[in-house]
Amino acid sequence: MTVPSRPSRPAILGQNQYGKAETRVVRITRDGATHHIKDLNVSVALSGDMEEVHYSGSNAHVLPTDTTKNTVYAFAKEYGVESAERFGIDLARHFVTSQEPIHRARIRIEEYAWERIGTSGADGTGHPADGTGHSFVRKGQETRLAQVTYDGEDWEVVSGLKDLTVMNSTGSEFRGYVRDEYTTLQEAHDRVLATSVSGRWRFGWTDDEQPAPDWEESYAQTRQHMLRAFAETYSFSLQQTLYRMGARIIEHRDEIDEVRFSLPNSHHFLVDLEPFGLENDTADGAVYFAADRPYGLIEATVLREGCEARIPVDLTNL
Amino acid sequence: MTVPSRPSRPAILGQNQYGKAETRVVRITRDGATHHIKDLNVSVALSGDMEEVHYSGSNAHVLPTDTTKNTVYAFAKEYGVESAERFGIDLARHFVTSQEPIHRARIRIEEYAWERIGTSGADGTGHPADGTGHSFVRKGQETRLAQVTYDGEDWEVVSGLKDLTVMNSTGSEFRGYVRDEYTTLQEAHDRVLATSVSGRWRFGWTDDEQPAPDWEESYAQTRQHMLRAFAETYSFSLQQTLYRMGARIIEHRDEIDEVRFSLPNSHHFLVDLEPFGLENDTADGAVYFAADRPYGLIEATVLREGCEARIPVDLTNL
Amino acid sequence: MTVPSRPSRPAILGQNQYGKAETRVVRITRDGATHHIKDLNVSVALSGDMEEVHYSGSNAHVLPTDTTKNTVYAFAKEYGVESAERFGIDLARHFVTSQEPIHRARIRIEEYAWERIGTSGADGTGHPADGTGHSFVRKGQETRLAQVTYDGEDWEVVSGLKDLTVMNSTGSEFRGYVRDEYTTLQEAHDRVLATSVSGRWRFGWTDDEQPAPDWEESYAQTRQHMLRAFAETYSFSLQQTLYRMGARIIEHRDEIDEVRFSLPNSHHFLVDLEPFGLENDTADGAVYFAADRPYGLIEATVLREGCEARIPVDLTNL
Amino acid sequence: MTVPSRPSRPAILGQNQYGKAETRVVRITRDGATHHIKDLNVSVALSGDMEEVHYSGSNAHVLPTDTTKNTVYAFAKEYGVESAERFGIDLARHFVTSQEPIHRARIRIEEYAWERIGTSGADGTGHPADGTGHSFVRKGQETRLAQVTYDGEDWEVVSGLKDLTVMNSTGSEFRGYVRDEYTTLQEAHDRVLATSVSGRWRFGWTDDEQPAPDWEESYAQTRQHMLRAFAETYSFSLQQTLYRMGARIIEHRDEIDEVRFSLPNSHHFLVDLEPFGLENDTADGAVYFAADRPYGLIEATVLREGCEARIPVDLTNL
Repeated sequence: MTVPSRPSRPAILGQNQYGKAETRVVRITRDGATHHIKDLNVSVALSGDMEEVHYSGSNAHVLPTDTTKNTVYAFAKEYGVESAERFGIDLARHFVTSQEPIHRARIRIEEYAWERIGTSGADGTGHPADGTGHSFVRKGQETRLAQVTYDGEDWEVVSGLKDLTVMNSTGSEFRGYVRDEYTTLQEAHDRVLATSVSGRWRFGWTDDEQPAPDWEESYAQTRQHMLRAFAETYSFSLQQTLYRMGARIIEHRDEIDEVRFSLPNSHHFLVDLEPFGLENDTADGAVYFAADRPYGLIEATVLREGCEARIPVDLTNL
Repeated sequence: MTVPSRPSRPAILGQNQYGKAETRVVRITRDGATHHIKDLNVSVALSGDMEEVHYSGSNAHVLPTDTTKNTVYAFAKEYGVESAERFGIDLARHFVTSQEPIHRARIRIEEYAWERIGTSGADGTGHPADGTGHSFVRKGQETRLAQVTYDGEDWEVVSGLKDLTVMNSTGSEFRGYVRDEYTTLQEAHDRVLATSVSGRWRFGWTDDEQPAPDWEESYAQTRQHMLRAFAETYSFSLQQTLYRMGARIIEHRDEIDEVRFSLPNSHHFLVDLEPFGLENDTADGAVYFAADRPYGLIEATVLREGCEARIPVDLTNL
Repeated sequence: MTVPSRPSRPAILGQNQYGKAETRVVRITRDGATHHIKDLNVSVALSGDMEEVHYSGSNAHVLPTDTTKNTVYAFAKEYGVESAERFGIDLARHFVTSQEPIHRARIRIEEYAWERIGTSGADGTGHPADGTGHSFVRKGQETRLAQVTYDGEDWEVVSGLKDLTVMNSTGSEFRGYVRDEYTTLQEAHDRVLATSVSGRWRFGWTDDEQPAPDWEESYAQTRQHMLRAFAETYSFSLQQTLYRMGARIIEHRDEIDEVRFSLPNSHHFLVDLEPFGLENDTADGAVYFAADRPYGLIEATVLREGCEARIPVDLTNL
Repeated sequence: MTVPSRPSRPAILGQNQYGKAETRVVRITRDGATHHIKDLNVSVALSGDMEEVHYSGSNAHVLPTDTTKNTVYAFAKEYGVESAERFGIDLARHFVTSQEPIHRARIRIEEYAWERIGTSGADGTGHPADGTGHSFVRKGQETRLAQVTYDGEDWEVVSGLKDLTVMNSTGSEFRGYVRDEYTTLQEAHDRVLATSVSGRWRFGWTDDEQPAPDWEESYAQTRQHMLRAFAETYSFSLQQTLYRMGARIIEHRDEIDEVRFSLPNSHHFLVDLEPFGLENDTADGAVYFAADRPYGLIEATVLREGCEARIPVDLTNL
């Protein structure tokens, strides 16, 4: 194949970013016989002075994605992984400050939680008493998310989670809605409300001079508020439950300015058992068909008054 | 459970949308013994005057998501599915014009292509000669995408595709890049370039008064230009190939103003066979390890000069 | 289309089975304000006198798969779901005893576990003290499995689980293996051992006259033994760990005669950080790359002496 | 951690196998400017004299799974990949004949098909006329499967495919079935019949002295017969269609002795549009809801008379 002459520029380059996605890094630390795990999936996206690589293929400004992968591993060893957010901050700062053509770095991290096997004899110190300080089972609930963006001046940190599946088996109704010529839905006075939570929350912290939040504590508390709001809200609609989940976070967590949720309404339909002479009554305990598709999808942002909305509208692609 | 009093309003509602996601509708049409399939996955997102349902749970403005699902099925029968884009336009117009509280509708559609079984005897009329006009095999390559947004005045139509996997087995190199203390990558003079294309393109058409594009023809041609640009570009970097794919569309398809691609660099690493006394040379035909993760991720927008960028930056969530 | 004459019989029918797969049934029971969930995915496979439906398309012996689905829902209401195994026994007996052409029924069940939200105030009675007795979060670890087969005379019950991800961060080595001309692997003196457990165990119970095991207690205990064996075995090879997991079940659970495991060796490779002047030493806490593919796959059966092996050899399709 | 003494032997080891699963190997060959791709996912499972590694952790008989991976890559270079079956035969023979403790090898291969981009100018020689002989798009339909088992004496070759999605939009009915107290299904006189084919077929070839089949030609023809039987059978039941698919292969392909299919009945339900004043009539072209779960699952073996059934009963795990 003959190498062709480089192409001309008939169309304009817009926003662009590049980096290594999904670097799977596991950091083990040892505290005597007691080990600790941080299990991350790190994606790097860099932007800056990158016109030439698009227009002519010149890589003179391109730090290879392979290098961004190596940096993730090296930083995990050199600086450890105190929290996903902290790790993202260290990485983003490095890329923006060490490479002149790079003006902006965004680090996205998925974190998988592990818990100890056989902690029954644990003495409250976090050290298992039974010699299994190095044995773990993956927790398996939500995937924790962290996103750090840095442009050399301001920080934006958005934390979150996905795939946290929750259900209220009562305490939910759906009535009084609009009807048009395509409406056949029956009102529900006592329904199951189930969803798989996808949420993001943005921190007010933007400046190195400010004290940073305790990222681990903030995550644990935010998750707990979200779950409690879901459990304790008598629900007239999933929108209302969503708003309560967001509002409770804003009310209780001063470090957070904005929350966005994408909540599928995971329909649990009462099965019609009348043809078989059975009454499928909720009060008595009922049988439901858990449907896959289609599903309602309820999405909204809840903001601290006076704050700007910056989390993108679509957390999923459907 | 006691129904609690409705909550107060300590936090502000931001952008919100709701609707039924992933309604799987298959529309068969019969032209004598020759049948035609449109196989869609339709997601509806409605926005408007929806404060109350979030703050108090009042559904007085809420058309149920179940109704949006019914509407999809009814429209598929009543108006047919000429193209995914046309179908989305009909649906979006309906929701915005028929429901006062709804100010904006966005319809997202995935389309799965089918081809005929046993068309060997086809006579060019599209009618199979052998009595199998009702038998199909799913094409299985890309998923076609269409997104229609309507606010009562302007239309925005974004088409696209995902999961179109392509490979150049030569005609790609990667050299002359930046090196820092974390760089170990060797230059590649003849590498495999493979990716799974995720692309979106926005049409200039915004107004009912303008003639609408031929959506089916536009898709077929755009896909073809994209593939040809991938195949015919000698690649110094995946960024350059991406730009050529976008630029070729802008150059050849007047109806399209903006293109965005998200291209994973699906690494095919040359296996080191030296320990076994084998030279794994590309010129001679080589053996590659197709890696899963991590992967480079290259994303960019290509715009017609003078046009505004409106396609969101992140087509995927990593 | 003309309905053709029915085909002749040039080839012989072998083993066959049919039924409705993946009926998603959720059974809620109410104990005052405290609710309980059983969340199942039930697949029915029936066999018997089914030659004609294959040879000629006569459905005279075919109970529709839709009916087997209805039966799952009706039984969930009428008899409840004490355990997946018990539910499977009731269903299998029904199909074999109520339909003359059906000679054998196999019921496969996946079960998803839920735990309560906000049980901190629970008083040990299983009743949450705080009014959230109807709020749940999906546990998210393993999927529990049950398979019941009945031929009108004997029962076979196989329980199990899949997708239980575990890790030992030390206590594992791999040395002293065979070397041939394709061997390049370095010995490992202190490695991470991680796997995603897929296991099945067969009960000795086969006869209605025998007392049946306590299925729930048996599952909980078997899972615990499996985890403890994984955690407490110093591992010279994953084969040895697998055997200890199976043997410990056989040793402690008299009701179980046979165990089979399929254990991927989920490789965690020590990252080479030497090029960056960093020593990535395990004793000091190390950084690993968690690889996706390829992976070792270790599979074996462990049997109570004198018992027959009946669990199929391949639990997965790779 | 103290290394414990090696465990005693209270339970018996049964069938066991091990090896590297899912080695992703891509073999490119060059015929001038025209390249050819073989894209495989290879899983090796070895059995033999392996008691000690399970009982005591001694690896003295264990060829590392890493070595089996290396062997896959080295063989792909040294011997090429003429067909997946041939490649599996070479590998299986190598492991069994070169390692004394290994008595049996099973090689499972998934193959992904690619087609050329821009072959419009091709001249029938297989060489594209337009300089894009190295550019490919992944075909995306079925995954081709091959499984080779060797015990040092006899060969067993099973080929197959999965995820081939097909649909007849008419020419199918379902009537005359058994009714019991749980039956509510209405008879269907003109329904959509759709499935995602999972099939396996076993060759009569077992002996190196016999001439081996042309594996590529056999696959292409078998796939074609399967599709034609699906398309051309007026279907009274999916069982009947399945049998015709298998029987046609047995009738036309002498090299094949046994076929097994697992066919989900991918339900396309006619949507009830009567509430909206629309008649959803099949004769006129209709609208269907394509359901995910549950689905009928129809599985059967079709045998050449006098041949033994050896393909396992369950091709999937549900």
